[in-house]
Amino acid sequence: MSPLHNDRFLRALLREPVDQTPVWMMRQAGRYLPEYRATRAKAGDFLTLCQTPELACEVTLQPLARYALDAAILFSDILTIPDAMGLGLYFSEGEGPRFQRPLRTAADIAKLGVPDPLEKLRYVMDAVSLIRRELNGRVPLIGFSGSPWTLATYMVEGGSSKNFRIIKSLMFDQPDLLHQLLDKTAQAVIAYLNAQIQAGAQAVMIFDTWGGVLSPRDYQAFSLHYMQQIVAGLQRENEGRRVPVILFTKDGGAWLESMANTGCDALGLDWTCDLKQARQRVGDKVALQGNMDPCVLYAQPVRIRQEVGDILASYGAGSGHVFNLGHGIHPEVNPEHAGVFIDAVHELSRAYHAQTDPGLGDNQRFYSVS
Amino acid sequence: MSPLHNDRFLRALLREPVDQTPVWMMRQAGRYLPEYRATRAKAGDFLTLCQTPELACEVTLQPLARYALDAAILFSDILTIPDAMGLGLYFSEGEGPRFQRPLRTAADIAKLGVPDPLEKLRYVMDAVSLIRRELNGRVPLIGFSGSPWTLATYMVEGGSSKNFRIIKSLMFDQPDLLHQLLDKTAQAVIAYLNAQIQAGAQAVMIFDTWGGVLSPRDYQAFSLHYMQQIVAGLQRENEGRRVPVILFTKDGGAWLESMANTGCDALGLDWTCDLKQARQRVGDKVALQGNMDPCVLYAQPVRIRQEVGDILASYGAGSGHVFNLGHGIHPEVNPEHAGVFIDAVHELSRAYHAQTDPGLGDNQRFYSVS
Repeated sequence: MSPLHNDRFLRALLREPVDQTPVWMMRQAGRYLPEYRATRAKAGDFLTLCQTPELACEVTLQPLARYALDAAILFSDILTIPDAMGLGLYFSEGEGPRFQRPLRTAADIAKLGVPDPLEKLRYVMDAVSLIRRELNGRVPLIGFSGSPWTLATYMVEGGSSKNFRIIKSLMFDQPDLLHQLLDKTAQAVIAYLNAQIQAGAQAVMIFDTWGGVLSPRDYQAFSLHYMQQIVAGLQRENEGRRVPVILFTKDGGAWLESMANTGCDALGLDWTCDLKQARQRVGDKVALQGNMDPCVLYAQPVRIRQEVGDILASYGAGSGHVFNLGHGIHPEVNPEHAGVFIDAVHELSRAYHAQTDPGLGDNQRFYSVS
Repeated sequence: MSPLHNDRFLRALLREPVDQTPVWMMRQAGRYLPEYRATRAKAGDFLTLCQTPELACEVTLQPLARYALDAAILFSDILTIPDAMGLGLYFSEGEGPRFQRPLRTAADIAKLGVPDPLEKLRYVMDAVSLIRRELNGRVPLIGFSGSPWTLATYMVEGGSSKNFRIIKSLMFDQPDLLHQLLDKTAQAVIAYLNAQIQAGAQAVMIFDTWGGVLSPRDYQAFSLHYMQQIVAGLQRENEGRRVPVILFTKDGGAWLESMANTGCDALGLDWTCDLKQARQRVGDKVALQGNMDPCVLYAQPVRIRQEVGDILASYGAGSGHVFNLGHGIHPEVNPEHAGVFIDAVHELSRAYHAQTDPGLGDNQRFYSVS
């Protein structure tokens, strides 16, 4: 593998000094980019795009050609695991992801196997290897997975849900059965993420999109517990470097302390959290990633820069912050606005890192008197 | 007006002693009830149901005939105000509420007037008077309104929204214009709720359904600020009794302290908050209303009772708690399960109120040694 030229993202996740705050955007390879829409049209449909390593690689790299991003993220979908488990993933226009065979009985759950990531999910690992080769050390590559709870909502509901009627009925009436499903899914996620790491992913992120629809008690038992199991089961070092793990529960701002106690390296935050308070709450346990409202990118450039400045000021001086949106970039965003955002993070963040010499460790650091 | 036979709800909102925890359900007059569906079919459409006082009264009273509820809530819609402002409310099947003339320019906002609630909203006041007469003192009647921010999202987007693109663009790029809209809307809400109080509403609730999509800073400036203005502008006493005000921001659990500082009497909580912690956080400033996950009603009766018991234990002894769901009851719920829920609250809560003598004031209270 080529040496890594820009390791700001990995350093910030480990709270090591950096020259400027690293930045990437959730869904940075996506519909807001005309070149993405062209590749997707060429692929024919979304699933073919995910399952063809050359095309997945192409769209992964597209935003890096436009913007000075500090990380690439594998282009894929969180539902590849349930698909590999045999549920039959498909996408219906306007309706989002659906499964041909959702889980509806105890027997459905009992017969689920943990898929070998080098067989049915080989296309993902091939994409990871190919992207690493094409990145050629420019920036690190992030691998990812959905959380067991989030995956289970789709597997049981058969697709997206508003009220989570079926999975919550299962949770309240037959918790042991749901635990059985979550346990298998957690094992599948561990194998899947470890395979991504072995194929070349230099950091991994777990997306818990739906943990925030749970009560605090149910979040601990049915979502966080399994993310903790995953963190404990991951290969944390590869190519002589630590592989950081980022946990992100959308609408999980109330639970940062317990998320930070899972052994992960960083937490993703949405924009409903105050970043300054979040930093105080997690202390030096984890780094933080986030948290600009993606709707700010609808605003004019001057307002985008102002918001970036406010968020940087809120985090304050020192490392441990990876700038990102608080959720995926919206499809209607003007790509030029994304560029304004990324440049503003780099430009405006330098002042917050100037006081420390990146070459020195924590107890050798000196502060300028200005 | 007839004397009030059951004032548990009003007493709990003022943290006065009660014999058992009062309970009602958001959307208790709704689609889960076959008798509601029959009246709605008779009305033809949802808007006619809202605008015909006899029919609105009929559905308001339906759940009271089935369950031992401690309050009735006016059957209406939060979008009556923008409709009275001239935006042309209509409901399209499957798509939810829409406006014929959404606000799209500064001129649209400039020409908005504050509607006289006794003219264009007369049908609401007539419904309130009629319901009070028909209730005949059984339980108190709750009036309500949407929050200015929540109403503005519909007025600007033209209906329900997923990403809030238009209103957030307005908020980030032209905050003064949005403030102008919110200020007019707050004035309209004050006039509307005061008219409901004068027509007989004995408590009022402000629904901030979409405050939770804002950052902490934007929530304070664009939602909470205007709810505080409303609280300050309301008539707080009528018929010789205090008229309590309840604020409810869905997904607003992070902001309870500042909500409690608005001068309101109680906060509504969704199920993503821990009730025990919420009580500690707000101290004796306000009462709390909530917060069972409405999906618990999908579960079997034994599980519903267990959950009610857990929530009662979480709040603990003493008054200041109105039991409710954390959001509206879902349309697919079995009406018998709602009955199990309501009876369980009354039955299981008595133990938490047994230690205080409702006849004595706070400093004369004695505790049994058991």
